[in-house]
Amino acid sequence: MPAATSLLESYAAGRWHHASDEGTPLRDAATGEEVARISSAGLDLGAMVAHARTVGGPALRDLTFHERAGLLKQLAKHLMAGKDELYDLSLRTGATRRDSAVDIDGGFGTVFSYASKGTRELPNDTVLLDGPLEPLGKGGTFVGQHLYTSRPGVAVQINAFNFPVWGMLEKLAPALLAGLPTIVKPASQTAYLTELVVRRIVESRILPEGTLQLLCGSAGGLLDELTVQDSVAFTGSAHTAGLLRTHTNVLHGGVRLGVEADSLNCSILGPDVSADDPELDLFVKGVVAEMTVKAGQKCTAIRRTIVPAAMADVVIEAIAARLAKVAVGNPAHDDVRMGALASLEQRDEVRKAVQALRASADLVYGDPDRVDLVDADAERGAFLSPMLLRARPGAVEPHDVEPFGPVSTVLTYESLDEAVELAARGKGSLVGSLVTHDPGVARTVVLGLAPWHGRILVLDRDDASESTGHGSPLPVLVHGGPGRAGGGEELGGVRGVLHHMQRTAVQGSPDMLTAVTGRWTKGSARAEDTVHPFRKSLAELRIGDSVVSPPREVTRADIDSFAELTGDTFYAHTDETAAAANPLFGGIVAHGYLVVSLAAGLFVDPDPGPVLANFGVDGLRFLTPVKAGDSIAVTLTVKEITPRTSADYGEVRWDAVVTNAEGAPVATYDVLTLVAKEWSA
Amino acid sequence: MPAATSLLESYAAGRWHHASDEGTPLRDAATGEEVARISSAGLDLGAMVAHARTVGGPALRDLTFHERAGLLKQLAKHLMAGKDELYDLSLRTGATRRDSAVDIDGGFGTVFSYASKGTRELPNDTVLLDGPLEPLGKGGTFVGQHLYTSRPGVAVQINAFNFPVWGMLEKLAPALLAGLPTIVKPASQTAYLTELVVRRIVESRILPEGTLQLLCGSAGGLLDELTVQDSVAFTGSAHTAGLLRTHTNVLHGGVRLGVEADSLNCSILGPDVSADDPELDLFVKGVVAEMTVKAGQKCTAIRRTIVPAAMADVVIEAIAARLAKVAVGNPAHDDVRMGALASLEQRDEVRKAVQALRASADLVYGDPDRVDLVDADAERGAFLSPMLLRARPGAVEPHDVEPFGPVSTVLTYESLDEAVELAARGKGSLVGSLVTHDPGVARTVVLGLAPWHGRILVLDRDDASESTGHGSPLPVLVHGGPGRAGGGEELGGVRGVLHHMQRTAVQGSPDMLTAVTGRWTKGSARAEDTVHPFRKSLAELRIGDSVVSPPREVTRADIDSFAELTGDTFYAHTDETAAAANPLFGGIVAHGYLVVSLAAGLFVDPDPGPVLANFGVDGLRFLTPVKAGDSIAVTLTVKEITPRTSADYGEVRWDAVVTNAEGAPVATYDVLTLVAKEWSA
Repeated sequence: MPAATSLLESYAAGRWHHASDEGTPLRDAATGEEVARISSAGLDLGAMVAHARTVGGPALRDLTFHERAGLLKQLAKHLMAGKDELYDLSLRTGATRRDSAVDIDGGFGTVFSYASKGTRELPNDTVLLDGPLEPLGKGGTFVGQHLYTSRPGVAVQINAFNFPVWGMLEKLAPALLAGLPTIVKPASQTAYLTELVVRRIVESRILPEGTLQLLCGSAGGLLDELTVQDSVAFTGSAHTAGLLRTHTNVLHGGVRLGVEADSLNCSILGPDVSADDPELDLFVKGVVAEMTVKAGQKCTAIRRTIVPAAMADVVIEAIAARLAKVAVGNPAHDDVRMGALASLEQRDEVRKAVQALRASADLVYGDPDRVDLVDADAERGAFLSPMLLRARPGAVEPHDVEPFGPVSTVLTYESLDEAVELAARGKGSLVGSLVTHDPGVARTVVLGLAPWHGRILVLDRDDASESTGHGSPLPVLVHGGPGRAGGGEELGGVRGVLHHMQRTAVQGSPDMLTAVTGRWTKGSARAEDTVHPFRKSLAELRIGDSVVSPPREVTRADIDSFAELTGDTFYAHTDETAAAANPLFGGIVAHGYLVVSLAAGLFVDPDPGPVLANFGVDGLRFLTPVKAGDSIAVTLTVKEITPRTSADYGEVRWDAVVTNAEGAPVATYDVLTLVAKEWSA
Repeated sequence: MPAATSLLESYAAGRWHHASDEGTPLRDAATGEEVARISSAGLDLGAMVAHARTVGGPALRDLTFHERAGLLKQLAKHLMAGKDELYDLSLRTGATRRDSAVDIDGGFGTVFSYASKGTRELPNDTVLLDGPLEPLGKGGTFVGQHLYTSRPGVAVQINAFNFPVWGMLEKLAPALLAGLPTIVKPASQTAYLTELVVRRIVESRILPEGTLQLLCGSAGGLLDELTVQDSVAFTGSAHTAGLLRTHTNVLHGGVRLGVEADSLNCSILGPDVSADDPELDLFVKGVVAEMTVKAGQKCTAIRRTIVPAAMADVVIEAIAARLAKVAVGNPAHDDVRMGALASLEQRDEVRKAVQALRASADLVYGDPDRVDLVDADAERGAFLSPMLLRARPGAVEPHDVEPFGPVSTVLTYESLDEAVELAARGKGSLVGSLVTHDPGVARTVVLGLAPWHGRILVLDRDDASESTGHGSPLPVLVHGGPGRAGGGEELGGVRGVLHHMQRTAVQGSPDMLTAVTGRWTKGSARAEDTVHPFRKSLAELRIGDSVVSPPREVTRADIDSFAELTGDTFYAHTDETAAAANPLFGGIVAHGYLVVSLAAGLFVDPDPGPVLANFGVDGLRFLTPVKAGDSIAVTLTVKEITPRTSADYGEVRWDAVVTNAEGAPVATYDVLTLVAKEWSA
C-alpha cells in the first residue's frame, strides 16, 4: 500500500482551501506512482472572483507600471533562488532536466523579461498613451488621443499540462503588468508543480493579496461568474476551446476569450541546401530536438517536416540516425535524452494519432508499440519511441491530425510555391521555420508563410549559434497563431500587456486631455514662471512649465562659422548659386543642426542645477527653412516627467518649438533630459 | 396600382446578377411606397468568395499601401462629384438632408481620411514593420522583428440599415488599404442606396475587379464559404451577433468575427455645471441632437442622460423645451428637423422598448402613439415623436433596454463615483460623453469610464465650436466598444487597417531580416561603394549603401567655439569644476548637438547632387560622453527608401552611428533626407 499522498490545495480568497472530498489521484508519468490527489470540491468560485475584483485588482491598479514591474523582478529573483525543489518535482511529470529548464528557467526568464520591458517601455504611470495626438479641428481646440486603461476585472488562465510553470508565468506577468489580478487553473495532470510555485509566491508576500489565486481541480462554473471586464486565456486543445467559445458569457456576456491551441507547425528545408551545407545538419538537429524535447509534447513542435523531393531520402536517413541515439527512459537518469509522456492516457492518444496518420503516411522510424528503455518500466510509465513518418503523395492526414508526442511526418515539395501551399494546409500555425542560406528564398517563403503564422524562424549558419530554436516562444516575440492555432496572441513584450487593457479614444480640448492623461498636450496652457524650469528639481517641476526665449537673429556669419567649425559645407549652406537652384530652398539656408543648436543656446540655463544631461532628441522635423537674417525663438515646455525608481534622478521630456519672426514653426522636437529628484543650490 | 419598381442587383464575380425570383418589396420610410425589391435568389456565393480570393485579392496585394491609398483618393473624389443623386435617394430612407450628410459626406470623408493616413503613415511597400528590432542574442547574429502582412482572404461586411453609405465605406477603406477584397452585404431595408453607390464605383473602374462585390438580399450560406484567412465585420443587433458567433466556421474554422453592436451610450453632466454655465446648453443641445438626428437610429446615440440629482428638473425642462421645437415629418420638407424611422416595423420595435422602459421610468416628453407631422401621413410613414423618460430610483430597464429611435432616459447621480457606476451598468458602450469645465472632474470621470468605452468625448466651452459631437465616429479615432457594444474595434486610422492583417514575429540573422523586410536591419551587411551615396539618385540608391567616415578629433577649442557660436554655455561644456562634479560626466564634455553637427560634417558630400534636404532626425540618443581630445567617426547607412507618389523625389531614412576611438557608440539616430528620383551632374 503506497504512502498517503497529499491533496493539492487551492489558494482562494486569501486562504488555502482543502477540498471537501478525497480527490482524484495524479500519477508519476514515469513510474505510475501516485504523486498527489486533486479536487476543487467545496471551493466558492464566486468568492474567488469577487476577491480578485475587490481586493487584488484595486491594489494592483494603485501601482504604476514601473512599480508592478518591480514586483515582477522581485518575484523572479525569489523563485530563481528556490528552483531546485521545482526541478526535483518536475521529474515526476516525465520531464528530463533539459525539459524542465524550458519550463522552469523559461518561466522565470519570461518574468524577468516583463520586469525589464515594463520599466523600459511603459511609463511610470497607470495610463498608457497610444499613438500621437490627432487634430480634429483646424483651430486646434478639439483634439483626440488614444489611451489604454486597466480593466476592473479578473484574468482567468486555463493552462495545458505540458508547461506547469512557464504556462502560468507567461500569462501572469503581462496580466499583472496590465493591472489585472489572475486566477490560475492548471491542467490537473501536472498541477502539483504549479501548486508548489504558487505556494512559494504566496509565502513570499511579494504580490499584493488577491493578485494571484489558484484553482486546483475542476473549473466547472467559473465562467458563469465572469462578466464584461473579465478575460479567459486558454491553452489547450481545439476541442476544449470550442466548448469555451460557446459559453453564454463568451457569446453574449462580453467575456474576452484568447485561445492558443496546438497546431501542425512545419519546418521547411530550403531548395538551396545541399547535403554538404551546414544548414542540412541544422535542419535535422532542429527536427529531432522538436520531436524529443518534452517528448514532443509542445504546441510549437514540428509536426510537418517539409523538404525538397530530391532531398527526402537524405533527410530521412539523417533524422533516423540521430533519433537512434536518443535514449528514452527514466527522466532522472543522466543518459536519458527523452522522458515519458505526461500520462498513459496521453500515450494512448498519440498511438491513435499515429494510426490515423498511417492512412496516408508510412512509418520510417520507430514503433508505436515498443521502445528500448533506460532504467524504466514500459508497463507503468508513459514511454513511447520517437516516430518519423513519410507522407505518400496527396496525403491529407498530416495536415489535420496532431500527434501530441514525439512524432513528425516528412512531406516533399517541388517548388517554393508548393512548399508555401503545404505549410498553409495546416490552416494556421503557431510557428514555422525555414532553414536556408539564400536571402531570396527567405523573402519568398517568409512572406508566403506570414499570414498563416504567429512566428517564423529563419535558421542558417549565421544565426545558428545564437538561435533559440523553432519551438521556443520568447517573451519579447508574439506567441499565438491564426486559425487552427486558436487565433490568440500572447507575449510579444508590451503587446501582451495591451491585450489585457482597454483602448479608448478621448476627445476634448488640449487642456482637458492634459488633465486626463497627465502628459502635456500640444495646445494646452503653459505656465511661465519667474523661475527658469532648469532651476527646478524633478519634485518641483510641473507638466506645462515653460520657458519662452527672446528672438535671436541667424546671420550669414553664423552659418559660415558653423560650416567651418563642423565641416558641414553642404552646398545649401555655402554656395549661393547652387543653393538658389535647390527646389526646396531657393537660397542659402541655415543648417538644421545649427537651428537646434542655437535653440539650445536660447533655452538652456547654463549654471549648475538639477538638469544633469540631455540624453536625446525625438521626432525632430525641420518645417520651414531659416535664411540668413531670419530670427528664431524657441519655446520649451515640460511634457512628461518620469521618475526612475532606482536612481536619484528621472527623465523629463520637453516639447520644443522653434519659430521664426512670422511665428511659423521652423523646427519641432522633443528634448530628453535627466533631472535630479532633489536639488539645492 | 404603383409603377413597377426595380429589383436590386448583386455585383458578383464580375457581373451584375439579377435574382431568379421577384424579391421582397422595400418601402419608402415616409410614404410607404415601394422603392425597390430585393432578392439574392440564384446567387452563387461560393463563386463570389472564390472571385475575391483569386481575382480581387491578388490584384490588390500587388499594389503598395501608397498605391492603394491613391485608389481610395480617386474613389472618394469620384463619388463626391456625383453625390446629388445619392442625397435624393436617401430621402426615401426617412432621412433629412442633415441626416444624409452624416451618411453620405461622412462616408466620403472617411475614404479621404484613409487615403491620407495610408500615404502619410504607411510605407510605400506591401509589408509593414511593427515595433523595433528585438535583439535575441548577445552576439547580434540573432534578432527578431514583428511585421504585418496581408491575409490572402476576403473581408465580408454585414451592415446595419441606418448608414447605407458610411457603413459600407468605413469598413471598405481600411480593408482595401490592408489588401483585402470585400463582399458587402447591406441591410435590406436601405440596400437600394448602397446598391447605387456600388454601381457608381463599379462603373468608374477605379478599383481592380474583384476588390468589391455586393450581395443584395439574404446572405444565408455565405459564412459556410469562409475559412481561416477570411473575416466578417458585423454591425447590428446583439441578437444577430450571437447567431454569427455560433457559426461553425467562427467557432472552429478560424473565421475572424468583429462585432459592433448597439449600446446604451450615456452622456454625463458634470457636477460643476450650473444653470448659468454655457456647458448646460451644450449638454442639452447634445442630448437633443443625438435623440433626433437619424430619428435616433444611431448605435452611438445617447440612450442614458446622466445628471446631478439637483439638476434633473432644470435639464429635463430644457431638453423638453428644445424637443418641442423639433418639427417631425416629410424629410424633404425644409422645416422638418426629424424624418421617419426606417420602417413601420422599426417603429413598432421602438414603441415596445419604450413600453419596457416605463416599468421603471416615467415619460416626461412625447407620446409613443401620436406626433404632429409636417407634410406627412402618420399611417403610411414610420413617424414617431421624440420621447424623454425619467428613471425612478433603482431603475433597471434603462441600463438594459435599447430603444433604437428618438428616445433617451434621464438618470440622476449624487457623486462622481455613482455617475461612473451608472455608466458602467450599460455593460460596455461605444461612446460616452462628459460635459464639464472642470479638469479634475474630467480626469476622474474619463479614467473611470475608459475601460467601459471605445470613445469618450469631453465637451466644454473651449472645444464646443470645433467638436464633432457625441454621436459621430471619426475615421482617425477607434469606433467600437467592449461588452454589450460587441467587443469589436474599427477605424482609428492605421489601427483599423492592422485589424485586417496578420502580425508575425520573424527571427533570423540581420541579413535575412533585411532580405525579408526590404528595410536595412542593424547588424546586416553594408555596401561601401567608391561612389558616395549622396551622389546616387533615389533610383540608384540601394538598402545598405553606406559611407564610413574617417575619424575626427574633438578639441576643447571646438567645444569652446561651439558654445560661443550657439550661446549654449551649459556648465558641463564650459566650467571645468562644475562639470567635474556632474555625476554623469565628471568633466567637460562636448555638446550633444556639436557631436551630431560634426558627424554631419563627416558624412555630408557637399556638392550639389540628388540629396535635396535633411528634413528631420528620429530617435537620437547620446550614449557615451565625448570629451576634449576624443575622436569620433560616423557610419551612415541607407535604411529605408520611400519614393513619393506625387513628387519627383522620395524619402531616404539613414541609420547613423557615431563611435569614439574605442569603437563605443557615442550617438545613434536616423537621419531623414529628401532625395531626387533622378539626377545627373
